Amino acid sequence: MFLAKIRVTLKPTVNDPQGKTIAQALGRLGFDSVESLRAGKYFEVELDESERAQADVKVKAMCQQLLANPVIERFEYDLEPAG
Amino acid sequence: MFLAKIRVTLKPTVNDPQGKTIAQALGRLGFDSVESLRAGKYFEVELDESERAQADVKVKAMCQQLLANPVIERFEYDLEPAG
Repeated sequence: MFLAKIRVTLKPTVNDPQGKTIAQALGRLGFDSVESLRAGKYFEVELDESERAQADVKVKAMCQQLLANPVIERFEYDLEPAG
Repeated sequence: MFLAKIRVTLKPTVNDPQGKTIAQALGRLGFDSVESLRAGKYFEVELDESERAQADVKVKAMCQQLLANPVIERFEYDLEPAG
């Protein structure tokens, strides 16, 4: 059993209006040291796999096929034993 | 300058229909080892602070005030020197 912690973010060159809006809201709340903010998605996936290498292949494939849009997003993940 | 990598997730007791839907979609794509999936939010925030303790206080406060809904969500973050 493995737990994958997946972070999906927009590529640096892609505009992030959601992140800009949140950064402005933080500024209005008094957080004036915020230089920039990028918003993304986060997934925790429990996988019933016994071998790390196999779990790693699965996680990469599900990111490429469904969880991230490879045209505008990139992904990274940590894989840890669970359960 | 610090970079905060913030993960916001639903509390374990809170229903996650988005996560369930994504898990089902992965199942239909052939990823039959997916046991569960929880969906959350991810933020990367650049902070113009010189001291780690101060940056830490700011990040915690912005999570509590804006980035997470403390009633149904929890947050965790890493803080690393940047730029």
